[in-house]
Amino acid sequence: MSFGISIEASTNKKQKPDPKNLVFGHHFTDHMFIMDYDAGQGWHNPRIVPYQPIALDPAAKVFHYGQTIFEGLKAFKKADGTVITFRPDKNFERLNRSNERLSVPAIDEKLGLEALRQLLLIDQDWIPEEEGTSLYIRPFVIATEAALGVNPSQKYLFMIIMSPVGSYYKEGINPVKIFVESHYVRAVRGGVGDAKTAGNYAASLKAQEEAHERGYSQVLWLDGVHRKYIEEVGSMNIFFRIGGKVVTPALSGSILDGITRRSIIELLRHWGEPVEERQISIDEVIEAHRNGTLQECFGTGTAAVISPVGELSFNGEKYTIQDGSTGELSKKLYDTLTGIQRGIVEDSLGWMIEIK
Amino acid sequence: MSFGISIEASTNKKQKPDPKNLVFGHHFTDHMFIMDYDAGQGWHNPRIVPYQPIALDPAAKVFHYGQTIFEGLKAFKKADGTVITFRPDKNFERLNRSNERLSVPAIDEKLGLEALRQLLLIDQDWIPEEEGTSLYIRPFVIATEAALGVNPSQKYLFMIIMSPVGSYYKEGINPVKIFVESHYVRAVRGGVGDAKTAGNYAASLKAQEEAHERGYSQVLWLDGVHRKYIEEVGSMNIFFRIGGKVVTPALSGSILDGITRRSIIELLRHWGEPVEERQISIDEVIEAHRNGTLQECFGTGTAAVISPVGELSFNGEKYTIQDGSTGELSKKLYDTLTGIQRGIVEDSLGWMIEIK
Ligand SMILES: Cc1ncc(COP(=O)(O)O)c(C=O)c1O
Ligand SMILES: Cc1ncc(COP(=O)(O)O)c(C=O)c1O
Repeated sequence: MSFGISIEASTNKKQKPDPKNLVFGHHFTDHMFIMDYDAGQGWHNPRIVPYQPIALDPAAKVFHYGQTIFEGLKAFKKADGTVITFRPDKNFERLNRSNERLSVPAIDEKLGLEALRQLLLIDQDWIPEEEGTSLYIRPFVIATEAALGVNPSQKYLFMIIMSPVGSYYKEGINPVKIFVESHYVRAVRGGVGDAKTAGNYAASLKAQEEAHERGYSQVLWLDGVHRKYIEEVGSMNIFFRIGGKVVTPALSGSILDGITRRSIIELLRHWGEPVEERQISIDEVIEAHRNGTLQECFGTGTAAVISPVGELSFNGEKYTIQDGSTGELSKKLYDTLTGIQRGIVEDSLGWMIEIK
Repeated sequence: MSFGISIEASTNKKQKPDPKNLVFGHHFTDHMFIMDYDAGQGWHNPRIVPYQPIALDPAAKVFHYGQTIFEGLKAFKKADGTVITFRPDKNFERLNRSNERLSVPAIDEKLGLEALRQLLLIDQDWIPEEEGTSLYIRPFVIATEAALGVNPSQKYLFMIIMSPVGSYYKEGINPVKIFVESHYVRAVRGGVGDAKTAGNYAASLKAQEEAHERGYSQVLWLDGVHRKYIEEVGSMNIFFRIGGKVVTPALSGSILDGITRRSIIELLRHWGEPVEERQISIDEVIEAHRNGTLQECFGTGTAAVISPVGELSFNGEKYTIQDGSTGELSKKLYDTLTGIQRGIVEDSLGWMIEIK
């Protein structure tokens, strides 16, 4: 099925950035996908056009009421030139779960995947080939009706833009320092913390800025009710290895159902490693640190894949994990997952989708 | 001080909508104010230009991470043609409090007021004169840097757009039915519920849609921690009159510090009426209803000014207030505040600012 996607090819190809010095999310490919929604008419006019600014009325609802959803996933180029993507179907499923929560009309997931396929084919020379690089893909929806008043928009745009990105780690995988946030709260059960919507990220900026000033790269959020159960980190889910067992916070309704999180759980289970998805308090983590059973801690997300945590700061105390170096399991998970994504480790769980 | 605001007058004046049939936020005046921010350079190039679409890169941060702030206030035209605004200084103060919370650079409040003055003068023939009508003013800031990555933007736009609006009540003040929300949560202490930022409104859409389907016009939010303390309603703060005393939720950090709320408190105190700002649980309200001491309930906000509540629905039970009619105090507050705003009741608290 082509879904009637029209293509207007760019006649003015942009210069590609140096693949050795890619900054995350600053360069975009030659084309973008765009599709309109109007109440009564539904989603229509799917098209690939040259990457270009969009003109919106200043009253467009996205500017005022933040009705917007996004996704993030990656495509890779194998040594033989084949283009592969990591579980894109999961991203389009999650897009629609977020849409539902934010009263945005659903998008045909097959159409989304087909749009992505055609866009990747037309811009495939933008996928960098160096180890650790990839093409970051950003599907998103914005409410465009030009009307003030808090209610779901009658008009939307769905777009896909793509950006070549470098390795998250300049020189191999490197542990980060994380600040456990006890003042600010990102999301609470009953809210929109499990949807990938703009407001959750706006709500995180202040805490992140303050953590940076203190020398920490990210914050670890605690739940908004008890202020003690661990939620997630910036744009990553979080895992602990305590006394040989891997533990990650259960999907409580206020954290994102990360696709990397899910994949790590599936991979560990595939290896026969026990994984617990449950409530875990910061006190339990501190106690495990005290009694020497806290072996590893790592974040998981599309951008960094696996991000080992070398230090946690909580209530003025610093807790070093694994002497600040990368744990054995973190390393193994990183090598396996990035290996599968680059097509050099067997994809035994059937995650990679070839684009042709 | 003119703040060097340049003016490009519109040569193509739009047709004005019928003042008898104004729909909220659908028509905009001939001009808008706009100003740029670039890191290193600060806010610059303040200008009044014809109302027009804005062109943004699809990667502009506002679309992805929702870093945006807005305000809402009104201007009125007196019978003698004088243009007056209601406490605009409070809106620009609040704008900067919201900016601070969302890591948006502060805007000179005097410049904001001057921009508003010049914009109102150039578009003053857009202020409708019929009773109950006004010009709704929407200052707002959006993050425009074209870069993916969750961190405060390096570029912003600050704009002011204006829309002639009709009376909130087609035929006089009319009580509304409100659904007390016990499933969804709008905001939680430690979050951004006290900032006027887009994500708070996006987070409210689903609950509001479900309330509409059940025949209620708005939802009354409960706190996200205990799920029992009353917060606010849609875009209004809430007041109760119980046993002769007026009670409104204290500013807990998760509700908006409404300018109408503040004005009502000041007005009541000016009249010698006791007002309590404190925690109030839904149980206390239900109990007051049971024992016959719940006399009135009303919402306060820029759009409706005072909105009497005739019915509350909570946990499947309906609670009628004042037989569903407008209470005496609600009516008196509505008449006084709208009278002050139209310039026909003495402005003894010095709230109205004349634009000349
Ligand atoms: C808030 C949040 N949590 C977790 C994640 C990790 O999700 P995924 O593994 O699907 O990238 C992300 C990034 O997408 C995120 O934004
Ligand atoms: C969430 C919220 N609460 C309360 C209010 C009332 O505030 P104000 O009286 O300043 O209009 C508004 C509207 O501005 C609002 O959006």
